[in-house]
Amino acid sequence: MYLRKSLMVLASLVSLSAWGMKALPAKVAVPADNPMTPAKIELGKMLFFDPRLSMDGTISCNSCHNVMSHGGDGRPVGAGIHGQRGGRGSPTVWNSAFMTVQFWDGRAASLEEQAKGPVTNSVEMGMTSHDLVITRVRLIPGYIEAFKKAFPKDKDAVTTNNLVKAIASYERTLITPNSQFDKYIKGNKKILTAQQIKGMKLVDEIGCTACHSGDNFAGEGFKMGEGNYQPFPQVPGSKYDKMYDLKADLGRYEVTKNPEDKNFWRVPTWRNVALTAPYFHNGKVKTLDEAVRVMGKTQLDMDLTEEQVSDIVAFLNSLTGEFPTQTMPKLPPTVNFSLTPEN
Amino acid sequence: MYLRKSLMVLASLVSLSAWGMKALPAKVAVPADNPMTPAKIELGKMLFFDPRLSMDGTISCNSCHNVMSHGGDGRPVGAGIHGQRGGRGSPTVWNSAFMTVQFWDGRAASLEEQAKGPVTNSVEMGMTSHDLVITRVRLIPGYIEAFKKAFPKDKDAVTTNNLVKAIASYERTLITPNSQFDKYIKGNKKILTAQQIKGMKLVDEIGCTACHSGDNFAGEGFKMGEGNYQPFPQVPGSKYDKMYDLKADLGRYEVTKNPEDKNFWRVPTWRNVALTAPYFHNGKVKTLDEAVRVMGKTQLDMDLTEEQVSDIVAFLNSLTGEFPTQTMPKLPPTVNFSLTPEN
Repeated sequence: MYLRKSLMVLASLVSLSAWGMKALPAKVAVPADNPMTPAKIELGKMLFFDPRLSMDGTISCNSCHNVMSHGGDGRPVGAGIHGQRGGRGSPTVWNSAFMTVQFWDGRAASLEEQAKGPVTNSVEMGMTSHDLVITRVRLIPGYIEAFKKAFPKDKDAVTTNNLVKAIASYERTLITPNSQFDKYIKGNKKILTAQQIKGMKLVDEIGCTACHSGDNFAGEGFKMGEGNYQPFPQVPGSKYDKMYDLKADLGRYEVTKNPEDKNFWRVPTWRNVALTAPYFHNGKVKTLDEAVRVMGKTQLDMDLTEEQVSDIVAFLNSLTGEFPTQTMPKLPPTVNFSLTPEN
Repeated sequence: MYLRKSLMVLASLVSLSAWGMKALPAKVAVPADNPMTPAKIELGKMLFFDPRLSMDGTISCNSCHNVMSHGGDGRPVGAGIHGQRGGRGSPTVWNSAFMTVQFWDGRAASLEEQAKGPVTNSVEMGMTSHDLVITRVRLIPGYIEAFKKAFPKDKDAVTTNNLVKAIASYERTLITPNSQFDKYIKGNKKILTAQQIKGMKLVDEIGCTACHSGDNFAGEGFKMGEGNYQPFPQVPGSKYDKMYDLKADLGRYEVTKNPEDKNFWRVPTWRNVALTAPYFHNGKVKTLDEAVRVMGKTQLDMDLTEEQVSDIVAFLNSLTGEFPTQTMPKLPPTVNFSLTPEN
């Protein structure tokens, strides 16, 4: 079920009072068939950082989803093997465990499913098959051991399903609590500036929170696997459509081929949005203030004043969380040989 | 002054008894004008991992010198922005602080000087100037603070010289002590297998240690800035010249334009050599056993038996050290904007 135009229009007319201001939960939902364990998380971290999972040994998950930074790559679109460019920006991996579907178009229902995508995408990591990934991993004794430790009950532990389970388990640790906003919600009413509070009220009044609701500001009440899809632009015809090429990519339609899904997208999170420029699926908008202007016009048909833009940006900056300190993984070595192809 | 053919020939004829078997020192030499401090090391680590130091935001120092792994990239040659390939393999950054000159051809006399190279190399990180790097860094408030902390006496802390000083300081922490060999040298005579000891004696007997001597197995008695350059192939004309294209790259000659330097190279370390495949300046040799065969033939004019090759490989595997656990740096954010160019 999609929330469609009716709700959006409603949101732009009516100030929603109960938009679900909630702190980020400390823990994420964990699938019953993939419980988190320290061994699995550590294996997932190794795999996440390992460029040997790409065809030419140059790209790891972390190349585009940099967890030392804001969890994306700071670029308009992702960059894969042999200098190839993807069609869309790299969504942040931080707090992605709270997203009910993955990818801009929601085509993966879980983190596990998502992790299967980039590895064999020809413009991303470029492996020709998942079997080739497993063949490589099996040539690395340290991985065989780590898979056995992470999946002790499995007779054959080194499998694609276990590989993505491990990566997803690591990703479920990537959460950024204790933003200024979270502290405010938990009772520290002095932590937000007057301008930030003004912005917080404004996003509710004008209707942004019809979609950007809930603890992850990406929609509330959706089950895992169920996407909060919305049209972008909701109100076509503004100067921004052309200026930022907003309509060329048909988004969700490319998955479903349902004409009603043209230019529909998964609602992205606002968490850490101040850090994740450039913005939108094609990364054409370089600054947060411009992104706010674009959203005001394309989604709510409003020409926001510069004061309103500033207030909203101030509020959005309160959603930058704390990034936990992490130890670097130690990638299990290939000993006495190289498994990277010629070029 | 180079050690030239005379010494090499001598080494191949005479078994050197005092080849300087020494454990890896716990600390490295530190230049007087660049003392190591925690703030400087931390800044250097951030810069080392920051892809914003490359033109399109895709390549960091760590992309080719992966410190979560063996300090190289496991590829034949380095891979830079836009999928470009370099001409030579990426030497390991681990223990590079013990090398008296940097790069395969020794063209940098210090780690500081080395760090200036890749950033503005058009096929590596591709920045058009060091000034552009500094301009970018100055747009990141967290870096301005970190530079001030690292260089508190400098009125203008954010400079290219300080940037490379910080990176070099971080690199001086990248040492791998306590290999099996080191433990053996320090008195644990049982830690090496009989085969490893056989290999250890063999590399001395046949003359490998004429060049691969000293605590870093890269030459002894050289001052910082002074290179241990040797010809490779020392004995041209073997099948390997063509098989692995050993002579096309003229090495040190490309720096000095001195005809005597044709096909001369800085002697690489043996430390962690079991992990740093593929081998040699062009990365054409995929396995350590083949690298040993090639060296036997091209440097000592010997057809090593398979038993000899196995013994030497066993010994070289004893030189794999302990890689210290590191925390990930947190890259200072670009807030509300993106500084990466269009593509």
